Amino acid sequence: MAIAVCPGSFDPVTLGHADVVTRAAALFDEVVVAVAINPAKKGLFSVDERRDLLATALDGLDNVRTDAFEGLVVDYCRSIGAATMVKGLRSATDLGFEEPMAQMNRHLTGVDSVFLITDPAHSFVSSSLVKEVARGGGDISAFLHPEVHRRLLERLG
Amino acid sequence: MAIAVCPGSFDPVTLGHADVVTRAAALFDEVVVAVAINPAKKGLFSVDERRDLLATALDGLDNVRTDAFEGLVVDYCRSIGAATMVKGLRSATDLGFEEPMAQMNRHLTGVDSVFLITDPAHSFVSSSLVKEVARGGGDISAFLHPEVHRRLLERLG
Amino acid sequence: MAIAVCPGSFDPVTLGHADVVTRAAALFDEVVVAVAINPAKKGLFSVDERRDLLATALDGLDNVRTDAFEGLVVDYCRSIGAATMVKGLRSATDLGFEEPMAQMNRHLTGVDSVFLITDPAHSFVSSSLVKEVARGGGDISAFLHPEVHRRLLERLG
Amino acid sequence: MAIAVCPGSFDPVTLGHADVVTRAAALFDEVVVAVAINPAKKGLFSVDERRDLLATALDGLDNVRTDAFEGLVVDYCRSIGAATMVKGLRSATDLGFEEPMAQMNRHLTGVDSVFLITDPAHSFVSSSLVKEVARGGGDISAFLHPEVHRRLLERLG
Amino acid sequence: MAIAVCPGSFDPVTLGHADVVTRAAALFDEVVVAVAINPAKKGLFSVDERRDLLATALDGLDNVRTDAFEGLVVDYCRSIGAATMVKGLRSATDLGFEEPMAQMNRHLTGVDSVFLITDPAHSFVSSSLVKEVARGGGDISAFLHPEVHRRLLERLG
Amino acid sequence: MAIAVCPGSFDPVTLGHADVVTRAAALFDEVVVAVAINPAKKGLFSVDERRDLLATALDGLDNVRTDAFEGLVVDYCRSIGAATMVKGLRSATDLGFEEPMAQMNRHLTGVDSVFLITDPAHSFVSSSLVKEVARGGGDISAFLHPEVHRRLLERLG
Repeated sequence: MAIAVCPGSFDPVTLGHADVVTRAAALFDEVVVAVAINPAKKGLFSVDERRDLLATALDGLDNVRTDAFEGLVVDYCRSIGAATMVKGLRSATDLGFEEPMAQMNRHLTGVDSVFLITDPAHSFVSSSLVKEVARGGGDISAFLHPEVHRRLLERLG
Repeated sequence: MAIAVCPGSFDPVTLGHADVVTRAAALFDEVVVAVAINPAKKGLFSVDERRDLLATALDGLDNVRTDAFEGLVVDYCRSIGAATMVKGLRSATDLGFEEPMAQMNRHLTGVDSVFLITDPAHSFVSSSLVKEVARGGGDISAFLHPEVHRRLLERLG
Repeated sequence: MAIAVCPGSFDPVTLGHADVVTRAAALFDEVVVAVAINPAKKGLFSVDERRDLLATALDGLDNVRTDAFEGLVVDYCRSIGAATMVKGLRSATDLGFEEPMAQMNRHLTGVDSVFLITDPAHSFVSSSLVKEVARGGGDISAFLHPEVHRRLLERLG
Repeated sequence: MAIAVCPGSFDPVTLGHADVVTRAAALFDEVVVAVAINPAKKGLFSVDERRDLLATALDGLDNVRTDAFEGLVVDYCRSIGAATMVKGLRSATDLGFEEPMAQMNRHLTGVDSVFLITDPAHSFVSSSLVKEVARGGGDISAFLHPEVHRRLLERLG
Repeated sequence: MAIAVCPGSFDPVTLGHADVVTRAAALFDEVVVAVAINPAKKGLFSVDERRDLLATALDGLDNVRTDAFEGLVVDYCRSIGAATMVKGLRSATDLGFEEPMAQMNRHLTGVDSVFLITDPAHSFVSSSLVKEVARGGGDISAFLHPEVHRRLLERLG
Repeated sequence: MAIAVCPGSFDPVTLGHADVVTRAAALFDEVVVAVAINPAKKGLFSVDERRDLLATALDGLDNVRTDAFEGLVVDYCRSIGAATMVKGLRSATDLGFEEPMAQMNRHLTGVDSVFLITDPAHSFVSSSLVKEVARGGGDISAFLHPEVHRRLLERLG
């Protein structure tokens, strides 16, 4: 059974993430959306909250589950028997960032990375931009699951 | 009357900024050069000082004025009746940074962003690089209005 | 009165072009969509047909008209009193192509080029890709004005 | 059963292609390497020869077979029940070329494209560069299966 | 004695080329500006004329000479004892084109390529753009040695 | 005698750095690998340790020595009589970062920057990625001189 990992910080999950996971779920038997735990960087939501929001946003995708991991993503992949990571690619800038990591990860363990071109509707969406706009009072409901949207506004007060 | 906003931190204004504003002033009835107030990031010059330096560097452009704003730039644009922002574009790297913001801003409010390709003479100039070089004692007089240059050296001691 | 030129081959006009022209028409008093006549390159549609299709696709934009020109686009701009060209920008690849021309054109005549980031929905649309897909029997109705679509299918037989 | 298509001209197959196909074969139940038939462009090898060379270069990959197709690649994918295409990605330049096609293909039929970052050892290899170097007498044995190499030298005389 | 080759088509030499050669001449004991002979592509000037124009434009650089070559540039480099090629780099688009060739050339023979970032004043200049503008009657005197300019206008009639 | 400087933080030196320095040493009479002292940023290794590790990793290159500098790199270059800097270039992202600095440095002092395309085997290697992977327990022995590798593991505990 082919397992793929979609790693990320998901603070919080956007509809751009959901689109990539949905497409990954059509390619693999099982997709694990894995929140990277970064002790050095406090997020807006806790890791458990992020997993809750992911579960909400990805509800209905039967072969998708969430998890969290600390350390190298490739070690995590191997620990659950995943041979592949799936990531979205928005632009040449994204590629400049992702390419060295993908090469390094394949070198380290043979875990391969596959890239899906982000849907045009989400090509400019990121968790950080969505948070920045929400903090300024902009309407970001088009980019988030309704429940994620509600929780984000609640958190930002 | 068509109003355009040139937003930025302008800490301090360079001749690269002045070139973009000058060309914007030829395109629009009125151009407002608006300093983004960022409480989380202390600059070298205060917001008022930056506006002073902008006024000096842009002296003679009759349809240009300066202002400052806090919060989302698109909310500011609407508050003054501006339907357009103007920005300089130096490179593919700049585009990777500007494109998501431009798409988001148009989504949020319909305020459109227009980009001018930076004049070759200023294609490598930025406030941060100019400050870094000035701190090291390099001669950056070619990139700044004489008065801005004087004030920058004075500030850096 | 500020006049801007949107130059191109428009063989045929797509909804991506129409989006850029519509946004340009909000920025300038008058926009002239100008078909570049290239004697060395026979298009699918004649220059007159392209202007017809442009007029159809841009119907309702009161301050937009079509024209055709041969020779340097900057000479054409000056001949009609236009100080600006407007172009869409889809990607870093587009920028790599457009930047030298924009710099050259400004050098030659002072005619400036302003760039609008293509709407995400049209970020992957070009006349050539649309024609290639249509030739292969793909449904490209989402990217063309209905009448342009009808004429393209008719032309391709 | 998940089927993926690796489309291309493969004139002739390089070890770069073979690397991508091998990695694709680890991701999907079946991989079909499909030679695009382009009546307008005569290649160095015929379509049948290209399939022969592909079979040789990919020998030992049990879930890989070759085919040829004319027309839209997405129509071909659907005709064989493939929901996915796999392509190698060497650089930002490649992405600029592939992104519009991937978006268009997903729009047309829902057939998705997944991208694998080319192995560094093959990041500069393409059929056209290999042919150009071979024509000039350069040693391109490092980039081709031995039998493909032999046939290429034979063909170039 | 370190010899470097500046290869190109130089049809005709621009001041952008001259800038790169001048800077290369400061780095190496001898620089050979080598016109690539391409039997399949007729230029505006013959290979001998291009060498004449190069000699004119580069007059005064004592350690620079011109030559012409057919076949692989790396074979030519080795034939004259040059271990290095020097090229100008204008943009990310240029890099996307040059990188695979540089890697291939180093693989083939160990001949290394060094890149100089084009001077901003010439960042948008190329022989093909200069010819295109000159054909349209534009003033390209800023980009060419006066004698090259005269000969180009004469040739274009 | 032509002297070139390879500036960097080298915290610690990788085999990617060593490849660039080795190729630079074939181009210039003397190469000085110069550690930039940055009082504001504490590294993993001290400046002296970095120079030790550089000396180890570059042992056997007779015309290479190490040094350290504070302030503008171009002032340092002039202080030792070097007219050139040499840097590796991995990608379009690198170019976006390096180009403004190279233009500024040439403007300030005439010190030119030459770029070597990174060997494919090291195209994804950087000190920061190597440290990040080592911290996570990944095997980065392929990217470091054995002694540098040993010291890095020792330092990370």
